[in-house]
Amino acid sequence: MATDPRRILTLTSDFGNRDGYVAAMKGTILTIAPDVRIVDVSHEIAPQDVMEAAYVLSSVVPHYPPGTVHLAVVDPEVGTDRKCVALEQGGHYYVGPDNGLFSLLLKSSEPDHIVELDRPQFWRTPEPSTTFQGRDIFASVAAHLAAGRMLDDLGSTILEIQTMHWAIPISDDQGIQGWVVHVDGYGNCITNISRLEFEQLQQTRRFKCYVGNAILDHRQNTYADTAPGETLVLFNSDDFLEVAINRGNASAMLDIKKGTSVNVVFVDDK
Amino acid sequence: MATDPRRILTLTSDFGNRDGYVAAMKGTILTIAPDVRIVDVSHEIAPQDVMEAAYVLSSVVPHYPPGTVHLAVVDPEVGTDRKCVALEQGGHYYVGPDNGLFSLLLKSSEPDHIVELDRPQFWRTPEPSTTFQGRDIFASVAAHLAAGRMLDDLGSTILEIQTMHWAIPISDDQGIQGWVVHVDGYGNCITNISRLEFEQLQQTRRFKCYVGNAILDHRQNTYADTAPGETLVLFNSDDFLEVAINRGNASAMLDIKKGTSVNVVFVDDK
Amino acid sequence: MATDPRRILTLTSDFGNRDGYVAAMKGTILTIAPDVRIVDVSHEIAPQDVMEAAYVLSSVVPHYPPGTVHLAVVDPEVGTDRKCVALEQGGHYYVGPDNGLFSLLLKSSEPDHIVELDRPQFWRTPEPSTTFQGRDIFASVAAHLAAGRMLDDLGSTILEIQTMHWAIPISDDQGIQGWVVHVDGYGNCITNISRLEFEQLQQTRRFKCYVGNAILDHRQNTYADTAPGETLVLFNSDDFLEVAINRGNASAMLDIKKGTSVNVVFVDDK
Repeated sequence: MATDPRRILTLTSDFGNRDGYVAAMKGTILTIAPDVRIVDVSHEIAPQDVMEAAYVLSSVVPHYPPGTVHLAVVDPEVGTDRKCVALEQGGHYYVGPDNGLFSLLLKSSEPDHIVELDRPQFWRTPEPSTTFQGRDIFASVAAHLAAGRMLDDLGSTILEIQTMHWAIPISDDQGIQGWVVHVDGYGNCITNISRLEFEQLQQTRRFKCYVGNAILDHRQNTYADTAPGETLVLFNSDDFLEVAINRGNASAMLDIKKGTSVNVVFVDDK
Repeated sequence: MATDPRRILTLTSDFGNRDGYVAAMKGTILTIAPDVRIVDVSHEIAPQDVMEAAYVLSSVVPHYPPGTVHLAVVDPEVGTDRKCVALEQGGHYYVGPDNGLFSLLLKSSEPDHIVELDRPQFWRTPEPSTTFQGRDIFASVAAHLAAGRMLDDLGSTILEIQTMHWAIPISDDQGIQGWVVHVDGYGNCITNISRLEFEQLQQTRRFKCYVGNAILDHRQNTYADTAPGETLVLFNSDDFLEVAINRGNASAMLDIKKGTSVNVVFVDDK
Repeated sequence: MATDPRRILTLTSDFGNRDGYVAAMKGTILTIAPDVRIVDVSHEIAPQDVMEAAYVLSSVVPHYPPGTVHLAVVDPEVGTDRKCVALEQGGHYYVGPDNGLFSLLLKSSEPDHIVELDRPQFWRTPEPSTTFQGRDIFASVAAHLAAGRMLDDLGSTILEIQTMHWAIPISDDQGIQGWVVHVDGYGNCITNISRLEFEQLQQTRRFKCYVGNAILDHRQNTYADTAPGETLVLFNSDDFLEVAINRGNASAMLDIKKGTSVNVVFVDDK
């Protein structure tokens, strides 16, 4: 098993862990690819929240070996004519609806290969459910991919997929306007402002960060650099700007939600 | 591993994902059957809700290969003299308390073989906990079954298990009275009325469906066939009648709960 | 795979199941140890609640085979100078922050071997994140351990780790004062009073147990020994004193929380 890294298949969805939807997908997968290693990323994505799924997936993919298949199903338009796609970029494979789910992963480069899933012989049934294509199309195709099928077998090549533009903050020489793309389970507020962009613009200047009901002007390295209950700003483990409270819930205390704007202004130090 | 499909073992319980109960069962299983593939169906079944567990399990089993062992522990009567059973039907194996958990799976046919778990040599300990037989009896027996033991080894044959009758709606030529057997994580309300029964009775007639504070008279194929916020009725991915709101929560908005009755009346179209 | 039990790696954290943190750890682990079997104990430990994690872990470990690696990350002091450690006791391996997480497991005996994780070549990166050492140090080291590395390779031997003393109730001949160390998902209230200690002190006497707004003086064997809605005291499946309500939520009804004290008084029966 160690020699073929494509045998890892990750799952991301908004199906929740209470119902049988995830297990129905896993049964479908294991029937096709009995040896695949399934890893749950999250099934607690907020219902139909494509942006949250895109963020969570983007934070996880870099830690998997090339060849991994990432199946993501957050699909408000299930059963309409939005496309079903599979794609490859940098050795990673992605399967899901064409609704922007992969935007954050693809923001810096184009996919190497995209196919539309138009070949029913790789579905669980030629007449898939109109409400649960996660099981009948996506899980089935992802399993075939993990079992060694080529992308070219699974569908017809297309040239573009949908991408969302909420990944990209707005900036000029004075500062950056981004926003909170994710609030994690601790209440930490993660923005779409990367360390790279921040530091390139900041140079030697000080900064002020306006977000929710807080104004912050010091970067910390970790939560415990401040006293319990204090607000802080740091770059998180994926190098994105994060607003947090040491041992507290920043989202609740500072009135910050997903989508809240974050304004960083750089000020000359004199 | 691919050649022996019995090595899949699914788990369904009301133990929750916060405590160590599920992991204690898995340790017990892996100590006996180190190669078995464990798949979690759900551990978020509402506490002691046998009906919800029966529904979730019934929606998952058809997607697993024959030979799979399904362990289900929702057991309000743990420690009393209710029986512990294992059974086989159509190549699938089931292990759990004899309290109706398997009613929906068995409604159309009798089990091929039932045994009462009366042989302590297959338990984790001959003096099992009176409060956690999920670990000490069921997990242990399920692991032995997945590892290749025959049902006949594990207990004495019995002829009947408990079945619940909430699986079966009442119907005559004018219509069907069923009820909601499950509200999923999106708030979709799933009834015990099957597409087959509905269509056989409906023939060419129109219908009205009375449920909660809604009256519905059109079937849709998928959520997105209606505008966001609109109520709809459809057959779900397991072919049961479901009441939903496109991108909304039908249970909350329409005042429908598990157990709410659903009345379908067929009307001549003239 | 059956022959090397060290290949089981359990995970306990307060990361939640919604975000990508757990999956990032698993990707790190599988990149290093592709064949390891990962078992989730819980990721729903209350944020930064070391005591809850210690309890849950202690209830799970005895059910795993020797050689299992237990990774636990509940780490309020991440990024400070608290130590990162790995240790072995009785054939089980533990990896996590040195903050008392393993206190309940080690209360009856010393670890056989402890190392401080001071060798960056076994980390995911020589410059680990200051906020997510669960991924960059602990998961990486645990994977190397599960893949067969010796403790001695992974760090320098140290002689002591932090232990917390909330494991130990106070007792004299008249009775025991302990407290609730865990409230499970059913609302059952589990104390730190063991059956062994209770029975050694009780001898032939009756008892009264004062906890929350209840006074209890009968032990039951299982929930169903009382009528639904009735309060009971029993020894749970790990042989700790537990206060419960048959088919009800003892924590909510009796005003008992984690940390609530429990007083047992023994009375001569005359």
